[in-house]
Amino acid sequence: MATTKDDSTDSVQFFEGVEKLLEIWFTSSSSINRKQGDLRQIPQWKWQSLLKIVRCEIISICRTEHVDAYVLSESSMFLSKRRLILKTCGTTTPLQCLEPLLELIKEYTGFEEVENVFYSRKNYKKPELQISPHQAFEEEVGLLDTFFPGGEAYCLGSVDSDCWYLYTLNKEKSVDEPSEPDQTLEILMTHLDPEIMALFTRDVCSSADEATQKSGIDKLIPNMIIDDFLFEPCGYSMNGVSKNGNYMTIHITPEPEFSYVSFESNIPEASYEEIIRRVLNTFKPKKFVVTVFANKESIAASCPRDLEQTDFLKCSGDWLRTDVQYCRFKNYDLTCAFYSRFPS
Amino acid sequence: MATTKDDSTDSVQFFEGVEKLLEIWFTSSSSINRKQGDLRQIPQWKWQSLLKIVRCEIISICRTEHVDAYVLSESSMFLSKRRLILKTCGTTTPLQCLEPLLELIKEYTGFEEVENVFYSRKNYKKPELQISPHQAFEEEVGLLDTFFPGGEAYCLGSVDSDCWYLYTLNKEKSVDEPSEPDQTLEILMTHLDPEIMALFTRDVCSSADEATQKSGIDKLIPNMIIDDFLFEPCGYSMNGVSKNGNYMTIHITPEPEFSYVSFESNIPEASYEEIIRRVLNTFKPKKFVVTVFANKESIAASCPRDLEQTDFLKCSGDWLRTDVQYCRFKNYDLTCAFYSRFPS
Repeated sequence: MATTKDDSTDSVQFFEGVEKLLEIWFTSSSSINRKQGDLRQIPQWKWQSLLKIVRCEIISICRTEHVDAYVLSESSMFLSKRRLILKTCGTTTPLQCLEPLLELIKEYTGFEEVENVFYSRKNYKKPELQISPHQAFEEEVGLLDTFFPGGEAYCLGSVDSDCWYLYTLNKEKSVDEPSEPDQTLEILMTHLDPEIMALFTRDVCSSADEATQKSGIDKLIPNMIIDDFLFEPCGYSMNGVSKNGNYMTIHITPEPEFSYVSFESNIPEASYEEIIRRVLNTFKPKKFVVTVFANKESIAASCPRDLEQTDFLKCSGDWLRTDVQYCRFKNYDLTCAFYSRFPS
Repeated sequence: MATTKDDSTDSVQFFEGVEKLLEIWFTSSSSINRKQGDLRQIPQWKWQSLLKIVRCEIISICRTEHVDAYVLSESSMFLSKRRLILKTCGTTTPLQCLEPLLELIKEYTGFEEVENVFYSRKNYKKPELQISPHQAFEEEVGLLDTFFPGGEAYCLGSVDSDCWYLYTLNKEKSVDEPSEPDQTLEILMTHLDPEIMALFTRDVCSSADEATQKSGIDKLIPNMIIDDFLFEPCGYSMNGVSKNGNYMTIHITPEPEFSYVSFESNIPEASYEEIIRRVLNTFKPKKFVVTVFANKESIAASCPRDLEQTDFLKCSGDWLRTDVQYCRFKNYDLTCAFYSRFPS
């Protein structure tokens, strides 16, 4: 999110807000390891050196009973017992850390198995600025395939234009280990309201807290412990963690030339309509993509289908759903829907 | 479909059964042209020279009241008043004929507008053998984009492995012109039963008619006028046309090393379960992909959703649906489902 002015030309230097999102669930064939292993046993200096490979740094940590939430120089990391979420923007290289990451986790937790992996991202605004293997999804998939046998790659939305890429294992869950409920809502927004974006600059707000409150981010999901950061001269990141371990995270690239906001949460809801509306009203994007993942055990199990079936935003007259795709994976349902503001 | 033995090595020369399927609906801003225009007004020698560009030839024509069905040296062509279907396999180059095709149609029919286009294909077995622009979907899309502003490209299924590509306009239908009912079922099969495939060789059957009857193709959809062709030394094509203008078409590459069968029909049905079962029982593939398209005006309007929601083949215990994706376009719903035979 941290962006700098390019003084030589007086033009704003480009920053890629679009994140690479890596979520891995670990397990072990040993029931002792399954019971005792915990990603939070790994010492912080180990994470620091790992994140060097990714090309980002730890800015702040908020530890709660169920989850450790990290604000990074480029987005966020969440660690719970057996789930890692690493979300990084800019020209970071999260897939370069896979080998040492899997080694590190085996060494400190005994988790030698990957139960599932989800690697996803929107298409970049400027792919040519990315570092290998992140310039092309095919290249990312090639690398992921070497670590995750049976992984499958998907491109949802319109290939080579507005699309969202996903790599996942899509394998049958073993019968003896019931799944825990899991769900993820993500809203990736572009072409945002410049007046709202101005809040996330040091010119307008003097602190992260001020930006969080003036924008209304603190009211999106109530009862979250918020760890927020306002970059110099502009850019914003926040992690929110609830008492029972659910998280939300928001990252903002406010420059009008390439404005981008991402919202993500695993808060369980029987309907995401209300939260989606709140997020849209808070940031007022001209274009966005919504993804909803849920497994059968989740209270949100029917949400992917609901999002696909009812174009609830159409009723408000502001939004046109330009594309929607629904996927059934072995353990998860997913809907990916693309919206544009109605031409006025 | 026509394949030859490579005598020098005694190995069977590879043939790409996977077809490129181009369907274009034409219209005109002039109501006189809309009324009077008909693709079948174009003289046959014009089609012959056009198909030279595609690298295939006319083998047989079956003219009926509503549709002219062509058997080609590589697959089929169907012409009706305002719909062209050109399905060609091997190393044909249908997209190379787009410019002269659109010119030809404008000249003879007055149709100067493309109402919709559907260009689709499965991933090739050997893409490196294809001729430009057909080696990569990206290249095909690049060319299609120059002819069809607003076209969108999709990749359903698993990118770079078992997938199905689609290019379509996905634009809002004009309100004053109601859509006519339209639906398409396609079943693309690989790894087929060698004993059944043997029927489509000159060694086993001496005529196309014999192959059609022994395989049971004549019973798949009753009351079709059948035009079939058995290639030398092997390979099979058939077109079927019903009295009211519905079509079916089957193309078979029987060699065990790269066996491939495609079935396609626009026959309107409230459920395709029975036809799909019949086709599977006729050819016994180990892997296949089913696509169902339908617009709102079609009696099959709910079929894409039904195919996605009920894994009806699972009940029979033989099939595993490995992947399913459902897409809502502006005027069509589509489901694309991938199946494998249960590991025994």
